[in-house]
Amino acid sequence: MCGIVGYIGPKQAQNILLEGLRKLEYRGYDSAGLAVYQNGKLDVQKTKGPLKALEQRLSHHPLSGELGIGHTRWATHGKPSDENSHPHVDQSQEFSVVHNGIIENYIELKEKLQAKGYPFTSETDTEVIAHLLADLWDGDLVSTVRKAVKQMEGAYALAIASVKEPDKLVAVRLASPLIVGVGEGENFIASDIPAILEHTRNVYVLEDGEMAVITRDGVSLFTTDGAPVNREQMRVTWDAVTAEKAGYDHFMLKEIFEQPKAIRDTLAGRIKDGVVDLAQDISFTEEDLKGIDKIHFVACGTAYHAGLMGKSVVEKLVRIPVEVDVASEYRYRDPIITPSTLVVVVSQSGETADTLAALREAKKAGAKVLGITNVVGSSVSREADQVLMTWAGPEIAVASTKAYTSQLIAIYLFSLHLARVRGSLDAAELKAYTTALLNLPEQAQTILEEADAIRPFAEGIAKHDNLFFIGRGLDYAVVMEGSLKLKEISYIHSEAYAAGELKHGTLALIEDDIPVIALATQKAVFEKMVSNIIEVKARGAHVLGIGLQGDTELGKSVDETLTIPETLPLLTPVLAVIPLQLLSYYASVARGLNVDKPRNLAKSVTVE
Amino acid sequence: MCGIVGYIGPKQAQNILLEGLRKLEYRGYDSAGLAVYQNGKLDVQKTKGPLKALEQRLSHHPLSGELGIGHTRWATHGKPSDENSHPHVDQSQEFSVVHNGIIENYIELKEKLQAKGYPFTSETDTEVIAHLLADLWDGDLVSTVRKAVKQMEGAYALAIASVKEPDKLVAVRLASPLIVGVGEGENFIASDIPAILEHTRNVYVLEDGEMAVITRDGVSLFTTDGAPVNREQMRVTWDAVTAEKAGYDHFMLKEIFEQPKAIRDTLAGRIKDGVVDLAQDISFTEEDLKGIDKIHFVACGTAYHAGLMGKSVVEKLVRIPVEVDVASEYRYRDPIITPSTLVVVVSQSGETADTLAALREAKKAGAKVLGITNVVGSSVSREADQVLMTWAGPEIAVASTKAYTSQLIAIYLFSLHLARVRGSLDAAELKAYTTALLNLPEQAQTILEEADAIRPFAEGIAKHDNLFFIGRGLDYAVVMEGSLKLKEISYIHSEAYAAGELKHGTLALIEDDIPVIALATQKAVFEKMVSNIIEVKARGAHVLGIGLQGDTELGKSVDETLTIPETLPLLTPVLAVIPLQLLSYYASVARGLNVDKPRNLAKSVTVE
Repeated sequence: MCGIVGYIGPKQAQNILLEGLRKLEYRGYDSAGLAVYQNGKLDVQKTKGPLKALEQRLSHHPLSGELGIGHTRWATHGKPSDENSHPHVDQSQEFSVVHNGIIENYIELKEKLQAKGYPFTSETDTEVIAHLLADLWDGDLVSTVRKAVKQMEGAYALAIASVKEPDKLVAVRLASPLIVGVGEGENFIASDIPAILEHTRNVYVLEDGEMAVITRDGVSLFTTDGAPVNREQMRVTWDAVTAEKAGYDHFMLKEIFEQPKAIRDTLAGRIKDGVVDLAQDISFTEEDLKGIDKIHFVACGTAYHAGLMGKSVVEKLVRIPVEVDVASEYRYRDPIITPSTLVVVVSQSGETADTLAALREAKKAGAKVLGITNVVGSSVSREADQVLMTWAGPEIAVASTKAYTSQLIAIYLFSLHLARVRGSLDAAELKAYTTALLNLPEQAQTILEEADAIRPFAEGIAKHDNLFFIGRGLDYAVVMEGSLKLKEISYIHSEAYAAGELKHGTLALIEDDIPVIALATQKAVFEKMVSNIIEVKARGAHVLGIGLQGDTELGKSVDETLTIPETLPLLTPVLAVIPLQLLSYYASVARGLNVDKPRNLAKSVTVE
Repeated sequence: MCGIVGYIGPKQAQNILLEGLRKLEYRGYDSAGLAVYQNGKLDVQKTKGPLKALEQRLSHHPLSGELGIGHTRWATHGKPSDENSHPHVDQSQEFSVVHNGIIENYIELKEKLQAKGYPFTSETDTEVIAHLLADLWDGDLVSTVRKAVKQMEGAYALAIASVKEPDKLVAVRLASPLIVGVGEGENFIASDIPAILEHTRNVYVLEDGEMAVITRDGVSLFTTDGAPVNREQMRVTWDAVTAEKAGYDHFMLKEIFEQPKAIRDTLAGRIKDGVVDLAQDISFTEEDLKGIDKIHFVACGTAYHAGLMGKSVVEKLVRIPVEVDVASEYRYRDPIITPSTLVVVVSQSGETADTLAALREAKKAGAKVLGITNVVGSSVSREADQVLMTWAGPEIAVASTKAYTSQLIAIYLFSLHLARVRGSLDAAELKAYTTALLNLPEQAQTILEEADAIRPFAEGIAKHDNLFFIGRGLDYAVVMEGSLKLKEISYIHSEAYAAGELKHGTLALIEDDIPVIALATQKAVFEKMVSNIIEVKARGAHVLGIGLQGDTELGKSVDETLTIPETLPLLTPVLAVIPLQLLSYYASVARGLNVDKPRNLAKSVTVE
């Protein structure tokens, strides 16, 4: 996820672009840049760091001109650096491009272009596009862009400016959002509405496979095949605050709804022919991977819950023993580490202080370290021996949602990669898992489409100050995350229990009407789970059961039921957590609390 | 712990003895027996099973006579069986003895007596005494008993009847309670007051190293060296219910106060010359022990918390990787078990259904299984490959206290045994640990002597419905137990957190005046712990800090402070848990709840 802005009109582009980027900082903030056209030349200023760093640079080297494109970056391919910042240009600086999304076949394209002598200065996939445009130049910008797009696979949004036709900007969208803002004698391109809301409320929303050509006075829409598109202008009625959240009331809800995309992006390009291949992500050798005899997952908070899932997944698929530790404990407990120990640290921000400290301890003790993080260029991504990125995009709400599900996906991918290399699963099993993985985004979408159904349950539990979650096996790890979510944003004292353990003490707290949320998605322990549900029902608990679609048994033992689509048991947590996230969200809303910024908490805990 | 009764007087002894045993069933209930004298003969009836089984047997074979001794057993040496039941007699049935406690040198004595041709019919240490009396018989019962006692090491209470002098009973006490009840024309012996309360309220309480000779009309007290003892008669004012609890208001408080003894008994005979030797308890060979490459602790509830401590202790002392699982999860999660995996199951009752099921799964999967249990003859003790007993005696209160600390002691002993065999600690280190272990009972006693100081804190927290415990490292495992204790009997929703993990979510629940109990006994993480205390203080929490005596820092950061004596860091949990047990106890009392039988809970969870 990155932010894109483009401007063409009578005013100085620099300030309009900068102002637009400022409104998009929530989409990316590790580097930024502008390209502005004047007098036959495209001038580029770009730099690593927050937007402020770019502003400072521009104060010394202002860009003059009335056409330009701008970008604020959330690193994917290539760490945050001056070179990797957008816009990217070809070697003669005739074509400039800003880009959001991923060009999946960029390595192949890059190699072809390099063979032809095009020099690359960055690690990005984006730079390919600038060289490709130069290579394909046929005397017509729109036609050239169309040819380039034909060669590019992936999901992306582009804004392009060229000295060849300095009276226009070209925008292309494939599965990454892009809009055109329509002004008077000036027009705009943006990845998101907030960027242009100060200038116009009239927009065209591009659809997948569409492109726009904008001049000072006009906007034309086509498909990338050249067919004209008739689109009604949309009038934006959102205020600026709503616009930032793409129309959702809170970032958290927006991010919950972004999960199908986050899952899809994290899977993208990593499954080929029914097997997982992470060779492009991590360069542990086959010997390295075969030599691992112990894995430690180390993380904090929500990422720790992803680690708990990691234990089940790795032990099940690869049969390597796994320990899971909260990082603040791990670093001081003198864990038993050998050179054949793999330590997997999980951190959305990649800056979690305890996790980083644990990573360093583990390296010092001789372990191999794999980082799973959402931020390219973060400390975890730099210090781990190998990194497996989640592609969830920036997460703004303090309570993590899409980062968690993406971490689960990364863990599945890594486990299946290991399973393939070590031969612990056969081709049919690998195929079954990868097929089911690829199906998850759509299944997640169906849960989100029924989100409103969860609201009444949430309003019910919002009246209580104490409640319990129960589950067995994988469901237990999921309810731990569900309980944390609820605590974080609703301040309800909830606690998650292994359902079979409740009777060894905590059952004493079950009294009339106390809500118990029971997750029962694991068929292997379903009957035992029902027994535990009956135990709490017998003590007066009001039970919300969450089970699988088609299950006709659970409803008989609980007071209320929600269901999720069925997938392979090991993958179910990705779906099962979504109703719990929504439950927490709506409970927090019902209590009138600050969903996105709960009291006492910070998004990224960079202190110990 | 067993129950002892003796009677001499004008009435039929059988019914008085039976009635007395009924009052002592809380001290033991796995077998029972009587020996009654008549017409130059001692007749014995004894049987495995609860007292009812003995009653049934007596209804067919009544014992007639006006002098006798009785016993209700809590098995220590030898499983519950007819043969192992008391009273024990010599081969000519001239000397009968009932016994509570342990004869530590019984094997040595048994071998000597066997060499002389005395035939043994039971596995007990007690039988030694009967044969020893026969062997040492010098024509005077008191003199013979005195000679026998000189040869017996250990802690015990005895009641003896002999056909040689059928006008008297002899009682001996060494570190196990024993009283003499004074009636009119009849007198009594009992291990505890309830046994005789229907007949008399006038008692002599024997002290260590004292013996009593009682006839119908008189009681004489001596030391075992023969010096006369002048003791004032005590008048018991307790009612029968209080008497059962030895004067404590609840079994739980009684059992908390029994911990120094439970620790001492569990250590007894297992430390020699500065090293732990469990050769008499467990017969794993040195090869077995050297071949272990992974240990799983599996348990439920409080015993699970002992297992958590087991991980720290074993990994620290022996450097074998340890996993800890709640049994209800372990049995279904398909754990990775190899023939070199040792599975340690921990269960006070030895009948916990989930733990037993896990034990069976582990055996089926090829693991060696060590059981740690408090009940000889329990399913765990029978089904585990090897058993390490805790000698805590019967635990009546549902909330476990002395069983937990005894489980910790068993874990230390086993770890030090392993460390010696595997050479992971040197002699000086082993000596340091064993010395510190032997010091724990006395240190525990000093905490109990200040128990009343905890009451005001408990009354403070009893007003709240929610609170948190925090700790790091070993302290974290202790506060998990402290929190469970509080939940079980006070119904306060408390939750224990690794102190460094709080800021990753749960800190949102910290608001003004919420109590936080912070355990800070581990010097290695003391400063980090103080930082976490300051985090919750800053959000308004009211913090009770529990630290080490002599620590002058903790008090500066918390609202109230309690201290415990210092021992080696790894052993501190045994002491640190005691204030938490007392806190829970007094909080429950302050809330007017049923301390010993909390709602919804059973003492031994024999369902899944």
